[in-house]
Amino acid sequence: MQTSGKIITCQAAIAWTENSPLSVEKVQVDPPKAGEVRIKITSSGICGSDSHVLKGELLIKFPLIPGHEGAGIVESIGEGVTSVKPGDKVLTLILPQCGECNFCLHPCGNFCLKQDVLPSSGLMLDGTSRFTCKGKTIYHSFRTSTFTEYTVVPEIAVVKIDDASPMDKVCVISCEVPTGYGAAVHSTKVTPGSTCVIYGLGGIGSAIVLGCKASGASRIIGVDINEEKFPRAKALGVTDCLNPQKLKKPVQEVVVEMTGFGVDFAFEAVGKMETMAAAWDSCNMSYGVCTILGLAPSNSKLSLDAQMILSGRTLKGVSLGGYKTKDCIPQIVTDYLQNKINIDPLITHKLPFNQIHKAMDLYYSGKTIRCVLLF
Amino acid sequence: MQTSGKIITCQAAIAWTENSPLSVEKVQVDPPKAGEVRIKITSSGICGSDSHVLKGELLIKFPLIPGHEGAGIVESIGEGVTSVKPGDKVLTLILPQCGECNFCLHPCGNFCLKQDVLPSSGLMLDGTSRFTCKGKTIYHSFRTSTFTEYTVVPEIAVVKIDDASPMDKVCVISCEVPTGYGAAVHSTKVTPGSTCVIYGLGGIGSAIVLGCKASGASRIIGVDINEEKFPRAKALGVTDCLNPQKLKKPVQEVVVEMTGFGVDFAFEAVGKMETMAAAWDSCNMSYGVCTILGLAPSNSKLSLDAQMILSGRTLKGVSLGGYKTKDCIPQIVTDYLQNKINIDPLITHKLPFNQIHKAMDLYYSGKTIRCVLLF
Repeated sequence: MQTSGKIITCQAAIAWTENSPLSVEKVQVDPPKAGEVRIKITSSGICGSDSHVLKGELLIKFPLIPGHEGAGIVESIGEGVTSVKPGDKVLTLILPQCGECNFCLHPCGNFCLKQDVLPSSGLMLDGTSRFTCKGKTIYHSFRTSTFTEYTVVPEIAVVKIDDASPMDKVCVISCEVPTGYGAAVHSTKVTPGSTCVIYGLGGIGSAIVLGCKASGASRIIGVDINEEKFPRAKALGVTDCLNPQKLKKPVQEVVVEMTGFGVDFAFEAVGKMETMAAAWDSCNMSYGVCTILGLAPSNSKLSLDAQMILSGRTLKGVSLGGYKTKDCIPQIVTDYLQNKINIDPLITHKLPFNQIHKAMDLYYSGKTIRCVLLF
Repeated sequence: MQTSGKIITCQAAIAWTENSPLSVEKVQVDPPKAGEVRIKITSSGICGSDSHVLKGELLIKFPLIPGHEGAGIVESIGEGVTSVKPGDKVLTLILPQCGECNFCLHPCGNFCLKQDVLPSSGLMLDGTSRFTCKGKTIYHSFRTSTFTEYTVVPEIAVVKIDDASPMDKVCVISCEVPTGYGAAVHSTKVTPGSTCVIYGLGGIGSAIVLGCKASGASRIIGVDINEEKFPRAKALGVTDCLNPQKLKKPVQEVVVEMTGFGVDFAFEAVGKMETMAAAWDSCNMSYGVCTILGLAPSNSKLSLDAQMILSGRTLKGVSLGGYKTKDCIPQIVTDYLQNKINIDPLITHKLPFNQIHKAMDLYYSGKTIRCVLLF
């Protein structure tokens, strides 16, 4: 506890401007203020939302420290923090659960009003930052910023997990698993024997595949423009792989033909307008459910044929699988520890934090499901 | 049964071209072919979908006989018809239930592949018409055409109802009641204590109000540009009435402010892009459900902010309340006869068929919920 109350100087990856390579720098991490928690990060996944941040699509200010899918150990806590204590194993939460706002109090809401995703401020709840580098203020990303040896997050965005948790793996239960697996099993509730299509076979898409398979889907069609992802996708449970760039007609038409009249459940895990529209069009027009998980660029519009809504289709947006994060995520960790859900196939690579450039290259190449950074 | 097997000459209302007044003419109604039923219409509602047809928005060919919300007595049946017999009291079904197609066989589907709504052919299943006037072929509307003393419909689009049914009223259980009431109680499943907004306080909108009230909604906001509808809407259960043309800011902003963070359930029963967008924007961004019932003009596009989907909203299209029509509509009639649901307030006017022009004027004036034509 020697560091408690003091500024910690450590290594962090900074994006100085949009679309620039990450720069590993010495940063100063302030002690946690009231209601905040300082965490020694042990592992962090690299997720699609991080790439949106780095491209500037979410309008977060630069320079910033990216990353949100973190696991770590509490280093110190600010005044009034009661749900975690120094030494606790924890996960960071891109979607907090304040437990007090309109959305948290509603039985079906999970998009806590204190989230910092839409729109993103890049700051803590008090409107300031805890990071400094070379005398400059560094912005937070989603109030989590996990590409750093130490971070500060609000108490509402951190949750204690089982002491037995393997800290090199469980970071993916911070975001990827609840988002993808949860969208299929918890939010959309994929039914046994159903047909599914998943647009995007990255980390989230792979977790959706696991969820569809666990739900007993009879056919799981995976769509991606990177065929290197196909063998792994098939190993996870995808029954048919489609590369839209290799088809003679639009992929949604192919999916409809393959399934007769469109799938029961379509999932979009890319965050582009064309894949969202394709997912919608892939659904059965009477009973199909299209679930959107991809984070679209700011101000982009999804255009739907208004008559084609009426026939019975459903479009559903889902964040973090619809889970109330602080309430539900520790249970997913426990389920993993009890072998009720196997997240291991989702982690294809692990690299030390000082090889973050290689890890980012792997992410962009599509050669990974998740590459986990180890600290 | 003297008319069985013969052409019947009777009165019918014909729309010779789009946007023209209806013309009551003598028409020849052919006997039913195999799998068809000829019905002596006893009453018919006038519904918003009929006005879309008359404006040419659904691309059905003219001349045509409009109307789909019909009650009547079976006059004769074609070969192979088994579910109804001459003398049976029946309702016509804008959405048939063939019981054999992919959509009918799916537990959640009701948009039977043999429907003639999207797109409309104006013809019977064999591609021909049963109506002639002055030597010209007259097209059907939704394979029901109820603004006529006699009509022919496919067996899959007609259902027998209780012998005790009052035939001057139950026609509204053919479409208005299952569409509106059903959307609230059956498809969307409005929850006790919830907040609702309904765009459009015509017949369908009024039936939605009944459904929201029956479901225990605590606040029901009604939106319409015709304030003459407000007193009746309040009598049905609307707690707050809004006229968008009298507001200083967009109605969706007012609805969000009135409810804190947007309603639990929004319903659109107009069929216009601006009201669909307003309904969507009225929903709580985390847990709001926007249900579309209005039939939009062909080729119109609904544009949604793609990031605003992700936070958890649901957009749901519903036809006929999601009911499988032949299976479920007779039960609604029985529920009415057993005083479990009261449809009487939905019928504000009754006029004899020969006053159809007055009835259409009443419809367009917004002075009615339903004006029922009596034959």
